[in-house]
Amino acid sequence: MTREISALVFDAYGTLFDVHSVMRLAETLFPGKGAALSQAWRSKQLEYTWLRSLMGHYKDFNEVTAESLDWAITSLSIVAGEGAKQALVDEYRRLEMFPEVPAALDALSASRPLAILSNGHPEMLEAVVDHNGIRDRFRGGILSVHPAGVFKPHPNVYRLAEEALGVPRTLLGFVSSNGWDAAGAKAFGFRAYWVNRGRAPEERLGFPPDRVIANLAELADALN
Amino acid sequence: MTREISALVFDAYGTLFDVHSVMRLAETLFPGKGAALSQAWRSKQLEYTWLRSLMGHYKDFNEVTAESLDWAITSLSIVAGEGAKQALVDEYRRLEMFPEVPAALDALSASRPLAILSNGHPEMLEAVVDHNGIRDRFRGGILSVHPAGVFKPHPNVYRLAEEALGVPRTLLGFVSSNGWDAAGAKAFGFRAYWVNRGRAPEERLGFPPDRVIANLAELADALN
Repeated sequence: MTREISALVFDAYGTLFDVHSVMRLAETLFPGKGAALSQAWRSKQLEYTWLRSLMGHYKDFNEVTAESLDWAITSLSIVAGEGAKQALVDEYRRLEMFPEVPAALDALSASRPLAILSNGHPEMLEAVVDHNGIRDRFRGGILSVHPAGVFKPHPNVYRLAEEALGVPRTLLGFVSSNGWDAAGAKAFGFRAYWVNRGRAPEERLGFPPDRVIANLAELADALN
Repeated sequence: MTREISALVFDAYGTLFDVHSVMRLAETLFPGKGAALSQAWRSKQLEYTWLRSLMGHYKDFNEVTAESLDWAITSLSIVAGEGAKQALVDEYRRLEMFPEVPAALDALSASRPLAILSNGHPEMLEAVVDHNGIRDRFRGGILSVHPAGVFKPHPNVYRLAEEALGVPRTLLGFVSSNGWDAAGAKAFGFRAYWVNRGRAPEERLGFPPDRVIANLAELADALN
C-alpha cells in the first residue's frame, strides 16, 4: 500500500515550519500580546488567501501576510511603526522547523522524491528553506502557488505539483497539518496525510484524509 | 449622490438577523458553553463556505451549517445528540433581527426597491424572513446564492442580484455587516455600505467600502 506512493509533497507553513515561532519576536515587540497577535495574524492571513482567491483578486503571499498583520495589529489596539511590522513579516523567512522535521525528511527522502507546495511567494519560500538548510532534501522541487494566481485549496494549485513531478495524482502523497489543505489535496485526487499535531477535530469538508498522523516522524515510520 | 442609488440589496445573516441569537438555546443546552459554541460555529461556517467554494465542491448552506456545528461541538468537547444539533440548526429559521432593523427597512423601502442576497439556502432564508414578518419589505426579491452553486464573495453571486434587479451595478447599493462581503460587492462594482456594529478594523482586501455606518438606522438617515 505505502509502496504505491511515488513522491511526497509537503505543505510548508504550519507543516514543516512553525508559523507561531514569530510569537517570540511579537512578544518582545509588544509584551503580553505576542500569542494573541500571532493567532489573530495567522487566522486572518488564511482568511485573506481564501477571500482574495474567491474574489478573483490574487495578491502574492508576502503582501497578504503584511496586510493581515496590519489588520491583526489594529484589532488588538497595538500601536506599531513600519519598522516593527516589517520585522515581523521578515520573520517568515526565518521560521523554525518543528523539532522532528529534519530527521523525518532525511528518512523520507531516501526512498522517493520530496517536494514542497506552498502558498508562499517563491522568493519568501526559498528564503525559509535556505535559512533551515534543507534545500537538498527537496529534489522534487520547491513549488509556489504563485504561477497559478490563486491560493489553496483551489484545484489549480494541486495541479502544479502533479505537473512538476510528472507523477499521476493517485501515486502522489500530500502532507499537510492544515486539515482543509489535506481535504483540498484529497478532493483533487492525491493521497492525503493530515499531520494533526494539536489533536484538532477532523474537518467536515467531505474529503477525509487517507491517514492521520501525529507528526512527521510517524509518517516516516509508516512509509519506510 | 445618494439619489443615484436605484436599489438596495442586504446581506441576511449578521446584517439583518443576529446569528448569535442562537446563543440562548446553545447556553440552555450546554450551560457555560453557549457563547463559545456560537462563536466557533459561526467562524467555521464561514470558513467552510469559502473552502467549499474554492475546492469547487459547493453544498447548500443548510448542510454547511450542520457540518460546521458538528465540528464546533467536537472542538469544544461537548457531547450532543442528534436532537440537540438539529434544534440548533433549526434556530437559523428563527434568528432575531437586530433591534433597529424593522424601522430602518420601513424607511428605506419607501423610496426604492429592497432585496436580500444571502448564502442561505432559499427555503431556510424564506423561513427566517417569514418568521420575522418582513417579506413585504423586499419587493426586489429574496435571493439565494444557491443557483450560482458557489458562496460569497465569488462575483457570480453578486451578479445574481444585478440580474434579478435589472439595475446597473454602479446604481446598486449593497449593505453588509460582513466586511469581506462588502469588499466582494465593491470589487464586483456595487456601491458598498459596511455596517460596522462592533467597531471592527476595516478589512485589508483592496476594496474599501464607500461608506461605513454603525447600524441600519444610520443608513436610513443617510439615504432618505
